[in-house]
Amino acid sequence: MPFSNSRKVRIEWGDCDPAGIIFYPRYFEIFDASTAALFERALGMTKFNQLKHFDFAGYPLVRTRAKFIRPTRFGDDVVVDTTISFGKSSFDVEHKLSRNGEICVECSEKRVWVVRNPATGGIKSQPVPDEVLEKFR
Amino acid sequence: MPFSNSRKVRIEWGDCDPAGIIFYPRYFEIFDASTAALFERALGMTKFNQLKHFDFAGYPLVRTRAKFIRPTRFGDDVVVDTTISFGKSSFDVEHKLSRNGEICVECSEKRVWVVRNPATGGIKSQPVPDEVLEKFR
Amino acid sequence: MPFSNSRKVRIEWGDCDPAGIIFYPRYFEIFDASTAALFERALGMTKFNQLKHFDFAGYPLVRTRAKFIRPTRFGDDVVVDTTISFGKSSFDVEHKLSRNGEICVECSEKRVWVVRNPATGGIKSQPVPDEVLEKFR
Amino acid sequence: MPFSNSRKVRIEWGDCDPAGIIFYPRYFEIFDASTAALFERALGMTKFNQLKHFDFAGYPLVRTRAKFIRPTRFGDDVVVDTTISFGKSSFDVEHKLSRNGEICVECSEKRVWVVRNPATGGIKSQPVPDEVLEKFR
Repeated sequence: MPFSNSRKVRIEWGDCDPAGIIFYPRYFEIFDASTAALFERALGMTKFNQLKHFDFAGYPLVRTRAKFIRPTRFGDDVVVDTTISFGKSSFDVEHKLSRNGEICVECSEKRVWVVRNPATGGIKSQPVPDEVLEKFR
Repeated sequence: MPFSNSRKVRIEWGDCDPAGIIFYPRYFEIFDASTAALFERALGMTKFNQLKHFDFAGYPLVRTRAKFIRPTRFGDDVVVDTTISFGKSSFDVEHKLSRNGEICVECSEKRVWVVRNPATGGIKSQPVPDEVLEKFR
Repeated sequence: MPFSNSRKVRIEWGDCDPAGIIFYPRYFEIFDASTAALFERALGMTKFNQLKHFDFAGYPLVRTRAKFIRPTRFGDDVVVDTTISFGKSSFDVEHKLSRNGEICVECSEKRVWVVRNPATGGIKSQPVPDEVLEKFR
Repeated sequence: MPFSNSRKVRIEWGDCDPAGIIFYPRYFEIFDASTAALFERALGMTKFNQLKHFDFAGYPLVRTRAKFIRPTRFGDDVVVDTTISFGKSSFDVEHKLSRNGEICVECSEKRVWVVRNPATGGIKSQPVPDEVLEKFR
């Protein structure tokens, strides 16, 4: 069984566009926070504390795909169900966003674990630490 | 040849996250504005005037896919090259975001043309009007 | 006693900038949603249903002021306490955002009740309906 | 004469809410980028390079005030005129956002220059360096 998490999100007025429905980039903000919530639940600490504890710099995306099946709009209370599965140096996250049990959006992300690269001042990918992997089992 | 447009975008401090690189949902805001710029160029009017002229309600996404190849960060001036190709009731938009000639993000969207649905108070898809299609030829 | 509401908000990674603290425009998104939550509580319906019921177009700001006393950062759980007081044709909303009982941000907004203006295609202000005012007593 | 800068901004579809006008927190994103543009012009380098050159962590707000005089909407091309004046340990920035010569929003910010605080892992304010002040004369 993949590790999973579920959380409720309210779609706000300011998330919506002049068509009265959610402006779709907001979904990716919701999904990013859903991935963070999954890690927080598995690791038992916020991302802020994860960054201190594991000395990494985040888990940026290398790829995302989303299908928008039904529009949502302000006032909607939606549920985001998130699952994760780990590869060697990357991991896949699936989000299903639903309202009243009906799927509205499906999203799949591939992310990498990165650390700061002192040589360049940038970031570089690195295998997910075993200590992290064990928490997800 | 597909219809195309190119525009420059500055990545701002507020687009970036604590890792110092762009927070990826911001890319989708950039791509949505790039699709709008393409339509504005082809139709010779802003989206505001398009909504009056064509009596539609926007062109929401049914699907998007993005690959994040190189991170961008505040202070970067990037170029977004956008192309479009029309199907029967939907259209595909491709965005390539580059910095100094190097591709940083590739994105492909499928969108539908929608009108307001008085019966439900929502929106419904409809074929892209011929008047619009002709402008893209 | 002014009508009031209190809600919890999680500050997310994507709300924060390269300094590692919240990018301040996000506070105004939080405050706008807090004003909406106050109205939802008083009127017993979401803003979506308010727009149908009262035939108005929102309550845009005419003025806002905010003091940023302590920075917040991703992983912080904050509380927003919101109060409202009504004038003749406008109303004032106060937000206090705190973490662990310490005030981080204070904000005061002046807003107006607006309806669509068929003559211009825009919006125009109008007195807050009595039915709304009574719900706040 | 205070140092000043002027820049053009397009209001986008995704900046607007279901009332069809800009969602006001977007103005603060625009103003933050306008302050950054002013510094970039005065110092002759992007904020990214400023952070390396001056070893500071940004110039967060301690206070902002905005008046919303006329709404703007997607498709509007607006101009933001920004001026700055320095105090001892803080500075004031004024933004005037106009469309076709008519003021739509006025905003005044007070900001402080901050550096990283190794003792706390946070940030602390510090006088604006003379090298910066001289560039603004």
